Amino acid sequence: MIVEIISIGDEILAGNILDTNKQYISDSFWQLGFKVKYHVSVCDDEGDIGDALLLAAKRADVVICTGGLGPTADDFTVEVAAKTFKVKLVENEMVLNSLISLLEKKGRKLCENNRKQARVFEKGKAFLNKVGTAPCVNYCFKGTDFYFLPGVPREMKSLLNESVLPNILSSRVSQYHFKTKFLKTFGCPESELDNKLKDLWRDRTFIDKARIGFRCHLPEVTIKVSVWDKNESEAQNQLGSVVKKIYDRVGEFIYSEDKRESLESLLIKKLSENNKTLATAESCTGGLIAKRLTDISGASRVYLGGVVSYANSVKEDVLNVSQDIINKYGAVSRECAEAMVKGIKHQTKADYCAAVTGIAGPDGGSKEKPVGTVHVALIKNGELSHQKLFLPYPREMFRMIVSSVILKAFLDE
Amino acid sequence: MIVEIISIGDEILAGNILDTNKQYISDSFWQLGFKVKYHVSVCDDEGDIGDALLLAAKRADVVICTGGLGPTADDFTVEVAAKTFKVKLVENEMVLNSLISLLEKKGRKLCENNRKQARVFEKGKAFLNKVGTAPCVNYCFKGTDFYFLPGVPREMKSLLNESVLPNILSSRVSQYHFKTKFLKTFGCPESELDNKLKDLWRDRTFIDKARIGFRCHLPEVTIKVSVWDKNESEAQNQLGSVVKKIYDRVGEFIYSEDKRESLESLLIKKLSENNKTLATAESCTGGLIAKRLTDISGASRVYLGGVVSYANSVKEDVLNVSQDIINKYGAVSRECAEAMVKGIKHQTKADYCAAVTGIAGPDGGSKEKPVGTVHVALIKNGELSHQKLFLPYPREMFRMIVSSVILKAFLDE
Repeated sequence: MIVEIISIGDEILAGNILDTNKQYISDSFWQLGFKVKYHVSVCDDEGDIGDALLLAAKRADVVICTGGLGPTADDFTVEVAAKTFKVKLVENEMVLNSLISLLEKKGRKLCENNRKQARVFEKGKAFLNKVGTAPCVNYCFKGTDFYFLPGVPREMKSLLNESVLPNILSSRVSQYHFKTKFLKTFGCPESELDNKLKDLWRDRTFIDKARIGFRCHLPEVTIKVSVWDKNESEAQNQLGSVVKKIYDRVGEFIYSEDKRESLESLLIKKLSENNKTLATAESCTGGLIAKRLTDISGASRVYLGGVVSYANSVKEDVLNVSQDIINKYGAVSRECAEAMVKGIKHQTKADYCAAVTGIAGPDGGSKEKPVGTVHVALIKNGELSHQKLFLPYPREMFRMIVSSVILKAFLDE
Repeated sequence: MIVEIISIGDEILAGNILDTNKQYISDSFWQLGFKVKYHVSVCDDEGDIGDALLLAAKRADVVICTGGLGPTADDFTVEVAAKTFKVKLVENEMVLNSLISLLEKKGRKLCENNRKQARVFEKGKAFLNKVGTAPCVNYCFKGTDFYFLPGVPREMKSLLNESVLPNILSSRVSQYHFKTKFLKTFGCPESELDNKLKDLWRDRTFIDKARIGFRCHLPEVTIKVSVWDKNESEAQNQLGSVVKKIYDRVGEFIYSEDKRESLESLLIKKLSENNKTLATAESCTGGLIAKRLTDISGASRVYLGGVVSYANSVKEDVLNVSQDIINKYGAVSRECAEAMVKGIKHQTKADYCAAVTGIAGPDGGSKEKPVGTVHVALIKNGELSHQKLFLPYPREMFRMIVSSVILKAFLDE
């Protein structure tokens, strides 16, 4: 089955917005084993929209169109499609009633522009939009199934997942069962993961019964495994077998099988479960660790806070790092990191403490201590440990990696 | 002049990567007043690539193709194009020499795969890639100008800006002068900016001689103004006149005309110039202000550091906020914010100090102090000021807005 995705809207062609819908839709189809072969975007232009629909009808089995379903005058995708397909539009009672009640809740009345959104293809289907006004309308033209969805990502996703994909699956490929797993990793570059796993599949993009893909959110990489089979338990077994092979090879880097989890959310969860508290003393990461921890709602239960000791004076005055240490070993040294972690432990009495001092660059490096040098000191279960790292990456990436190293260190112990 | 953008690569169609190139290229052409009418993506498939090129030749004047120029076997865009255009590929000496010297610098020798990258269209142009191996190759087929660029965004951008656009401008539209200005704003939502400015132009997307667009990087919005005219000084005057009108209406929200500047970079610059230091005491923002300031290289000259006093114990023990204040007024109160800012001033002796305490949510709100309540206290030039805000936004947005409010407050004074 061949899928084409068409997005409609001047704002995309003018570069005013980034079209993220296509990746989401492609990925969703890929999960189900369907091949997306064409992406097209055209302006709000009747001729261009019509041409794009006709071309898609020739080469694709399923076409997903987004955009141009709004209530305003320049939203006319469905009208153009009806003309192109030579089919009538009729008012759909279910959609109309849903629109009326949706607008009522907002204290508004149905106007003519909204009423337009209740017009659907004769002999086509309509699917209600749970998070907005524009429904998804469907029509089969010359054997090709067209689905028209709103371009607002939240509405598109809701309709795609709750209506379009189930409808396609029930009519097209009910004989297949699909299973997917996400493995979140930190500590191994994508190219190295690829290298360690590449013999597990034949073709990165399309393969029978199992597929592995990588998604980078640097410095992290998520491994996505999808399998499909006519027999559900066979699919489950196959998934288990592929995932086991992946764990055997790169298990040390995998920290979660849940897409929504992050190093910071896992750490907050772990500390909450164990009734432990955490505090931080940050120099080169400048508050990034604190920021990442407090991104998580509920962090206040376990994260007491910290000190961003960017200047030496703050290391001395707030963290009680002695001037001698800084004079003798420098602010970027094992001795300073250890004094910092002792200082924050003393100040906060937290069960777990982390301190980090390093050179994020691009300036400030020397021959002995080049940009990328970092000293990390941790206190875990009353024991102090130290780690020296060399991470010669650009400033932002350096800071992300250092903060992730510390979060992972507390997770691993 | 009509522009079409084609990207080639299985990874895009499979949804493995988000294609950000099209927005960048579209925006770049739009800046110059050229209309991008079509976006297309196809797989690494000879037939599909050929069909896409032929269709583009029919409907566009300029075609920008990205992807499939790498040294590996599945990179064959140029070979397919040559077949499609029925033109020979010839080895280009300039490109070959550049490749050899580039590889030499990395201690590598030219292999057959790399040599492939030196093959260009007979009677076509080639432009050297300053940041990678694949050059940009150009060919005019049936009156349509095709440019083939690498898909790696950094390489694409470098070639587009330094070679492709200048080449197009010199050959196509030398009669026009284009002027652009970016106005970075904070504090006014996009819809409100749009409302205040919308009578300044007739059509948001394409208009003669002046165009205004918005780019959201929430909570900030950048206003982009572009004008063009055959007469350069007329273009300059027109730009000045539109920009003046914008300042008259929304000037209070504009903080920079330089795309690269941010609230944090401007503040660091201002403090450096005035030889002043800054420190922070953060509760609800949890280190985000510190993180944003230290994102800027050179922050260490002026930013001393701060305390993330997430727990009350840290407010008391590190910032010397009295237990009485917390018991009597609560941690989210004017009194606590003021005690925090005095505490950080005492600890760090910084010239400028900021303290913030609030309820980021989603939990922790009450009837008297709902989620979104914030107290900000600042010390500027020895004077303490306080501000109570109510920002009922999701956690992440809440924290971004609060941190921006504080950065802007120091910039404004």
